[in-house]
Amino acid sequence: MDDGEFAPRRRLLAERMAELGLDAMLVSALPNIRYLSGFTGSNGLLLIYGGEAVLATDPRYATQVRQETACRVVVKRGAMVRAIGPVIRKLGLRAVGFEASRMDVATFHALSKEVASHAALKPAAGLVERIRAVKSPEEVERIRRAVRLCSAAFNDVVRRVRPGIRELELAAELDYRMRKRGAEGPAFETIVASGARSALPHARTSPKPIGRRELLLIDVGAQLNGYSSDMTRMLHLGRPAAETRRLYRVVLEAQRAALDSVRAGVVASQVDRSARRVLQAQGLGPRFAHSTGHGLGLEIHEPPRLGRRETARLEAGMVVTVEPGAYIEGFGGIRIEDTVLVTSKGCEILTPTSKELMVV
Amino acid sequence: MDDGEFAPRRRLLAERMAELGLDAMLVSALPNIRYLSGFTGSNGLLLIYGGEAVLATDPRYATQVRQETACRVVVKRGAMVRAIGPVIRKLGLRAVGFEASRMDVATFHALSKEVASHAALKPAAGLVERIRAVKSPEEVERIRRAVRLCSAAFNDVVRRVRPGIRELELAAELDYRMRKRGAEGPAFETIVASGARSALPHARTSPKPIGRRELLLIDVGAQLNGYSSDMTRMLHLGRPAAETRRLYRVVLEAQRAALDSVRAGVVASQVDRSARRVLQAQGLGPRFAHSTGHGLGLEIHEPPRLGRRETARLEAGMVVTVEPGAYIEGFGGIRIEDTVLVTSKGCEILTPTSKELMVV
Repeated sequence: MDDGEFAPRRRLLAERMAELGLDAMLVSALPNIRYLSGFTGSNGLLLIYGGEAVLATDPRYATQVRQETACRVVVKRGAMVRAIGPVIRKLGLRAVGFEASRMDVATFHALSKEVASHAALKPAAGLVERIRAVKSPEEVERIRRAVRLCSAAFNDVVRRVRPGIRELELAAELDYRMRKRGAEGPAFETIVASGARSALPHARTSPKPIGRRELLLIDVGAQLNGYSSDMTRMLHLGRPAAETRRLYRVVLEAQRAALDSVRAGVVASQVDRSARRVLQAQGLGPRFAHSTGHGLGLEIHEPPRLGRRETARLEAGMVVTVEPGAYIEGFGGIRIEDTVLVTSKGCEILTPTSKELMVV
Repeated sequence: MDDGEFAPRRRLLAERMAELGLDAMLVSALPNIRYLSGFTGSNGLLLIYGGEAVLATDPRYATQVRQETACRVVVKRGAMVRAIGPVIRKLGLRAVGFEASRMDVATFHALSKEVASHAALKPAAGLVERIRAVKSPEEVERIRRAVRLCSAAFNDVVRRVRPGIRELELAAELDYRMRKRGAEGPAFETIVASGARSALPHARTSPKPIGRRELLLIDVGAQLNGYSSDMTRMLHLGRPAAETRRLYRVVLEAQRAALDSVRAGVVASQVDRSARRVLQAQGLGPRFAHSTGHGLGLEIHEPPRLGRRETARLEAGMVVTVEPGAYIEGFGGIRIEDTVLVTSKGCEILTPTSKELMVV
């Protein structure tokens, strides 16, 4: 069991806990559990206290959990809070942080019943996520590999685009190529949206065949060794109209402006503002109905968010998407998205795929 | 907008709400929102009251939501409880149910802030899920199609099994075949586990190549039009040892015993007991560390659970998996799983795939 990368993360968390006056932290979000312990099962609860860690899971994972983690393990049927509650009581922990945005109300009630007479439960939402936002060099390398794998799969598939092929078939090909190249799977449901459907910024892939003179939006990411990538590229079948070209140029300019503004120390909302300003100047402000980007790593959406109201500052080692778009109902939508690493000098664009509008 | 299948579901929910003394029900779980409104987006909150429904979502889904639902729609940026809170206040709703097991603590606190001085929030966990447990004939037909699609993809892929192929490659092929046949994707992360890895009941597929004389467990389901299927089959590469054959026969016998006990009116734990009794008689009781099955539909795990302690009775129209197993650490595991429809006379096995141990 190599606890090499997990123990330092737990130590960093313990420092943050001390700052907040917490004796212990109860970690319920599975990606946070994985980050702090190595355990990848679908049911668990992790208690961190005084440099120690106890991980509860159920008998389905009895073998796996011991292969994956060096933490102390409790295997128990039923609700995980009933496995961890006695530990909290026995250790006499008094101030126990919990993940308010990632624990459901029913579980919280069960937990309260277990420990309320002994310990105070303190909401500590986002504590682990904020630590996760800054990636270690090893994590950046994993994301880089996920990004490259995705771009390679994209290249495999782009050649096959032709009128008549269904959105779902194209998405199936993308997912297959990612898997064949070693990914666990797509990092999120692959979006292939053609024609007017591309105006739905979170369109789900449909059985619609791709038409002869249509925009084609492909939003795809790979998950590799637990880490995600995320990119969006636009294709056009046949010669694009002048209006489509203009729209594409404006979104690309917005994306470049946003990329130019990424740098450690910059407030996250500044990146959003850079993209939005370009679109607004062309009357497209109202057509850009989402934020400019998001962090990614063990999850596809992590802090920081690059939104209008974000006050957090970017830090070197954060990995974020930069993905402005413009969506015109009935006509179509354009989004251009890279995964980038924040550095002290600016950013490194990890996504190697060309950003020309691909005409096929 | 066809509200045909959604309005009757909301009426049924309104009846249950009346029994519980609820003026309104706040639905936060996305599959429940889909079930009651038709909306398939990834962010929403649905308020049901007096035969009416208001659905809140964010601007990304402004176009999509109006294509998918006949409910009244509020599109708003930010936290959804801030869109729904004013509606609750304005309507003077007093007793508002919420999904305690599917709403996080932070959201609950925000909701309380919005409405606490006007309305009492009442935990009503599982209310919508219990309605969903009994499927309409249309839903059964959708599940049947997902089951058939999965079995067809399984048949496509089984032919390609040979020593040296990696677990991940086989899983990729399965997922690809399901997609090519029209599925949105796998209903859960496809499990391909070979040799001793099959003893991990929830093994994740790995890059391990499949060996020359090994057990191979394949647990796979398709999601088609939102509905799931689930099956597990066992293969063996080369001639299986006598002990492997014996183990397979016992698990198959346990599965048949469980299937024989399924019928409307039977307590769910009875099905679990039927399987467990067969395994126990062969000294395999402790090797069966999960429950015998679970409902499925819009989600891959839904009520009822076929577990030891389940007191709910099966009803005609429920769709459940029946999947006993035996897992021997260091040796391997065997699980056999069908998706079945509960009927007044017994059950209909929806999964058409043969249950012989496939020797390849």
